[in-house]
Amino acid sequence: MSDDPLFHRIEASFAKQGLMQTLGAILGHVGPGEVTIRMPFSPAISQQHGFAHAGSIATIIDSACGYAALTLMAEDKAVLTSEFKINLLAPALGTHFEAKGRVLRAGRRIHVVQGEAWAIEGGNRKQVAVMLATMMVIDGETGLRS
Amino acid sequence: MSDDPLFHRIEASFAKQGLMQTLGAILGHVGPGEVTIRMPFSPAISQQHGFAHAGSIATIIDSACGYAALTLMAEDKAVLTSEFKINLLAPALGTHFEAKGRVLRAGRRIHVVQGEAWAIEGGNRKQVAVMLATMMVIDGETGLRS
Amino acid sequence: MSDDPLFHRIEASFAKQGLMQTLGAILGHVGPGEVTIRMPFSPAISQQHGFAHAGSIATIIDSACGYAALTLMAEDKAVLTSEFKINLLAPALGTHFEAKGRVLRAGRRIHVVQGEAWAIEGGNRKQVAVMLATMMVIDGETGLRS
Amino acid sequence: MSDDPLFHRIEASFAKQGLMQTLGAILGHVGPGEVTIRMPFSPAISQQHGFAHAGSIATIIDSACGYAALTLMAEDKAVLTSEFKINLLAPALGTHFEAKGRVLRAGRRIHVVQGEAWAIEGGNRKQVAVMLATMMVIDGETGLRS
Repeated sequence: MSDDPLFHRIEASFAKQGLMQTLGAILGHVGPGEVTIRMPFSPAISQQHGFAHAGSIATIIDSACGYAALTLMAEDKAVLTSEFKINLLAPALGTHFEAKGRVLRAGRRIHVVQGEAWAIEGGNRKQVAVMLATMMVIDGETGLRS
Repeated sequence: MSDDPLFHRIEASFAKQGLMQTLGAILGHVGPGEVTIRMPFSPAISQQHGFAHAGSIATIIDSACGYAALTLMAEDKAVLTSEFKINLLAPALGTHFEAKGRVLRAGRRIHVVQGEAWAIEGGNRKQVAVMLATMMVIDGETGLRS
Repeated sequence: MSDDPLFHRIEASFAKQGLMQTLGAILGHVGPGEVTIRMPFSPAISQQHGFAHAGSIATIIDSACGYAALTLMAEDKAVLTSEFKINLLAPALGTHFEAKGRVLRAGRRIHVVQGEAWAIEGGNRKQVAVMLATMMVIDGETGLRS
Repeated sequence: MSDDPLFHRIEASFAKQGLMQTLGAILGHVGPGEVTIRMPFSPAISQQHGFAHAGSIATIIDSACGYAALTLMAEDKAVLTSEFKINLLAPALGTHFEAKGRVLRAGRRIHVVQGEAWAIEGGNRKQVAVMLATMMVIDGETGLRS
């Protein structure tokens, strides 16, 4: 779909996230400090009232935020979520959802990222969540095992 | 498994959460103001390094917190997540995970709940996350549509 | 300073916040869903390294968020902070600081508000913090005593 | 008051926090991974309804959490707040307040700390807030300037 090396770097990691496949999520736009992810609604991601589960919305925003951070890191670095906070703004009702992460500050050791999610139905687009996340910059494979 | 009416109330709602089934999560202990949920590890919930995705851990803690709140609400009330914040304490590595929600304050309109999660492997049990969540008390079916 | 009734409503409440006076904070812009507050740096608000204390920055953003919410509430309602989360983006160094709250969603019972703060020095303006806050809509004086 | 070197290390830093003096806060218990701070109520820390301002409560919990983290750091390290989230559990009404920070996980680069605060009046002690905070481990004076 794209010849962009940045897109390929993120896509290669995204393809290893089993949970993204389980949720039916796909990688959207990838730019420096900004990534979007889309997810269709299905009963497989629902909560008890038939909305998308807050956890499924949090999951795609978390991934979008993590990858937004990774776009700004050197090739030998990896990303790990340190913490995030999400406010749900409206019930997650739609045919699909879009999550976007945008880096607010890229530091040597942590990146602070703002996330958002929208429910989409026909031509309507309604914001359903907002997130603030802290992503850790770690040393590639070594860091992951330390 | 249980004759406890409280357990049955929570179980009936839990069974409607498609995402819990998708993640292989099962309801554990249910007591007044306290609920636990268990989830096995599988590649279907992984992130890119092979750990359980932060989103899957957040999801079971969010459900445990929501149901912990629901145990303290009148029968005609329902629960909806308003917001939560999670800190990941260690990579989520284990054969399964346990999430626990415990109500800190039950108010007329919101309940504040503390959540925790552990990775379990053999006899070992390591805390991997901590959460603070705000759950809204809403009016049964009506409130959900307002 | 202003003939705007909205400004006067917020100013009347702001004048009762002893902590704002203690911190030397003053009310800035007041618009529907948006409020700014300014605070000069002084050793009286410092932390151990000589920066403005994270708590002082959090305090003025919290007040700005609360008042941003109050601008959208009926006259017989009052506002109370339910929770907030702040990420510090850079050490708070400057001659003064500006905090801004902007309502993301105004609900019947809670308002979700985004906050930001900047350090200002000469012509420079650097963002030092970002916040997400939940503000409760309560019934004037009665609600405060229930 | 104390011959404990750990207490003296924290007290020396605490004495440099101008904001603690401004709020009338004093250092209480200091142990490995745990610190308490006390603050009397006064109109100087109030919000518009006469309670202690959420920001003043957040400030003493933030300091308690930061110093709880510092007790576990090497002598050449310093602490800086990365982020925190606070839930207010009840209006902060009392003759004084106590904040406590307790380290949940001490890492090489960040410490995750749980905070709590109580309102005290006569023999009564009521929890008014709970916090989760991330504290950064930085390199003494050098790190503060990088």
